[in-house]
Amino acid sequence: MTALKALSKTALTVLYPRQKCTLVLRGNQIRNLMSRQLVYNEFGDPLQVVKYRECEVPALGKQEVLVRMLAAPVNPADINTIQGKYPVKVNLPSIPGNEGVGFVEQVGSEVQDLQRGNKVILATSLQGTWRNLAVFPRTSLTVVPDALGNVEAATLTVNPCTAFRMLSDFVCLKKDDVVIQNGGNSACGQNVIQICKAWGIKTVNVVRDRPEISELKKYLTNLGATYVFTEEEMRSAQIFKGEVKKPMLGLNCVGGKSGAQLLRYMNHSSTMVTYGGMSREPVIVPTSAFIFKNISCHGFWMTEWNKHAPAEAKEQMKDSLIKLMLTKQLKAPTHKLVKLKDFEEALKNALAPQGFAGCKYILDFTD
Amino acid sequence: MTALKALSKTALTVLYPRQKCTLVLRGNQIRNLMSRQLVYNEFGDPLQVVKYRECEVPALGKQEVLVRMLAAPVNPADINTIQGKYPVKVNLPSIPGNEGVGFVEQVGSEVQDLQRGNKVILATSLQGTWRNLAVFPRTSLTVVPDALGNVEAATLTVNPCTAFRMLSDFVCLKKDDVVIQNGGNSACGQNVIQICKAWGIKTVNVVRDRPEISELKKYLTNLGATYVFTEEEMRSAQIFKGEVKKPMLGLNCVGGKSGAQLLRYMNHSSTMVTYGGMSREPVIVPTSAFIFKNISCHGFWMTEWNKHAPAEAKEQMKDSLIKLMLTKQLKAPTHKLVKLKDFEEALKNALAPQGFAGCKYILDFTD
Repeated sequence: MTALKALSKTALTVLYPRQKCTLVLRGNQIRNLMSRQLVYNEFGDPLQVVKYRECEVPALGKQEVLVRMLAAPVNPADINTIQGKYPVKVNLPSIPGNEGVGFVEQVGSEVQDLQRGNKVILATSLQGTWRNLAVFPRTSLTVVPDALGNVEAATLTVNPCTAFRMLSDFVCLKKDDVVIQNGGNSACGQNVIQICKAWGIKTVNVVRDRPEISELKKYLTNLGATYVFTEEEMRSAQIFKGEVKKPMLGLNCVGGKSGAQLLRYMNHSSTMVTYGGMSREPVIVPTSAFIFKNISCHGFWMTEWNKHAPAEAKEQMKDSLIKLMLTKQLKAPTHKLVKLKDFEEALKNALAPQGFAGCKYILDFTD
Repeated sequence: MTALKALSKTALTVLYPRQKCTLVLRGNQIRNLMSRQLVYNEFGDPLQVVKYRECEVPALGKQEVLVRMLAAPVNPADINTIQGKYPVKVNLPSIPGNEGVGFVEQVGSEVQDLQRGNKVILATSLQGTWRNLAVFPRTSLTVVPDALGNVEAATLTVNPCTAFRMLSDFVCLKKDDVVIQNGGNSACGQNVIQICKAWGIKTVNVVRDRPEISELKKYLTNLGATYVFTEEEMRSAQIFKGEVKKPMLGLNCVGGKSGAQLLRYMNHSSTMVTYGGMSREPVIVPTSAFIFKNISCHGFWMTEWNKHAPAEAKEQMKDSLIKLMLTKQLKAPTHKLVKLKDFEEALKNALAPQGFAGCKYILDFTD
């Protein structure tokens, strides 16, 4: 009994370190249920520290929900969190993963608005989706339609939401306005392209040159990109001389020279939002861009937005994105499903992504 | 007559290139009045291209005002404008100077709200204050109290206004809040210190190390600076560990590493405003400052603000600053008065400012 309590406490700490929950053990109805999961006891190289384990599911609290997970992606932020490089406090041991979809298996005694069989995703930035059976607080879950694909649902809350917010919160974009972005082939960049296409907004997408550049251009154009240029091509592009408006919004996930290049084409009084720094160089802004072009620069972090946003805004965003997904205007990322036992392959891919448009590895918990 | 008309047209083009005015010659009441002035016919080295000339004052338009100038400063922006490096369109030949104070000598037939003897300053960014007699559109002038010193009045619209706006428009500062700035000894920086002192706001001022650092610290502390640190001292300063709040506003007129240093001490969700780039290096912002500290970066340019601001906002700012000046809370900059014939000395100083706190050269038109 003491050992079980200790295990439960540990599991809870791992799941939601910011909350103090009191476990109410009610008989042994789920005590014998085993969860297959990944876990790490120390920060470091994911290939070294992440281990597979099987572990008894703790008893359910009154406000908790047992979820049978269907799928959970392996995201770059998961890797950084395991490496201890991500500014999110994680208590060890920790079960990685902060996105995922599953079916409700059982609800706590005070949970009235969820029932067995509901398809749910994580609505807040919790750790702990890399396991087939998981206990989450009710407040962390939100229901999605059964018709929504598992991969779309499992990858809804990071990249599509980041793209949606950056296109909504900084500049009031109207039809035929223009957004310029670097890393147009990034996971978020692909969502930006598709959401803009659906909203009637034009995108100018800057990508690094590469051997398979023509395939990449075709891929992004098929997604809905208005223009795709290499950094070199961008320098001599004439589209802003009458063909399209100058962008009022720039999205930067690269930094360094690439970010500075966006500023050159952006309109007076426009806004650049930085949400990544793939070049590992800082954002470089010419003084004249600030003073004489009145450009403003901001950052965006989905985790922070989720902390402060009202429930209505979250709900509205989720509904909009799901609608786009159900009507095939927003596609699931290029992906590969792997079983939990093959997690090392997924970690390796996340450490060194392959393919020009990235290939997201999704842990598949279905039998 | 033809020659006079040509001269008048030239003079008008120089004065307010953006406006098309129709000269109404009414007799020869001011035709024989000669204006002593500086002028340049081509962009280039100020010491080469700026010439002294005497030139007949053109007849007054209905909405114009003849001003007998008292004083006009030689500002860095004047130098950049003469060099052709400032992004303000100037038609040549041009009379430099966009700040100054004088007495109204005569008003056009439709000017009802100004009269001879009113002390006036330029309220908009016009060129043409470096002359003892000047014709300005009524709309460019605003009255100041007679009690306001000539140097204070002549230097009111650039540096004090820039400091006032940057402290007003980006962050809602409350008593005991903290502003951090580099170039604390710059002309604008000194105004920031004094306005903050008057408003109960603390300032952390970062300056470059120099032989006379202790005199500079004393000088800025006397102006009202809460803290003055060299860049080196700032790195080991412990004041943000409980002594004062972390700054919600940073003011950057240097760029490069100096701007990046400010960001390190600024609070989460704070704002950095760039209004100069003395290091000639771009503004460098770590990606993490944008994403994880949610810092926003903006630019500020007084000229642009003046173009769009409502008259009430301009009036309120002028009144507030004059009140601070009359109560000796905002001092005239360290300065030297020079007669118009000695303008080369003033240009030389502006090209290579002397003294740790700068010494502004003011053209003195009084006899």
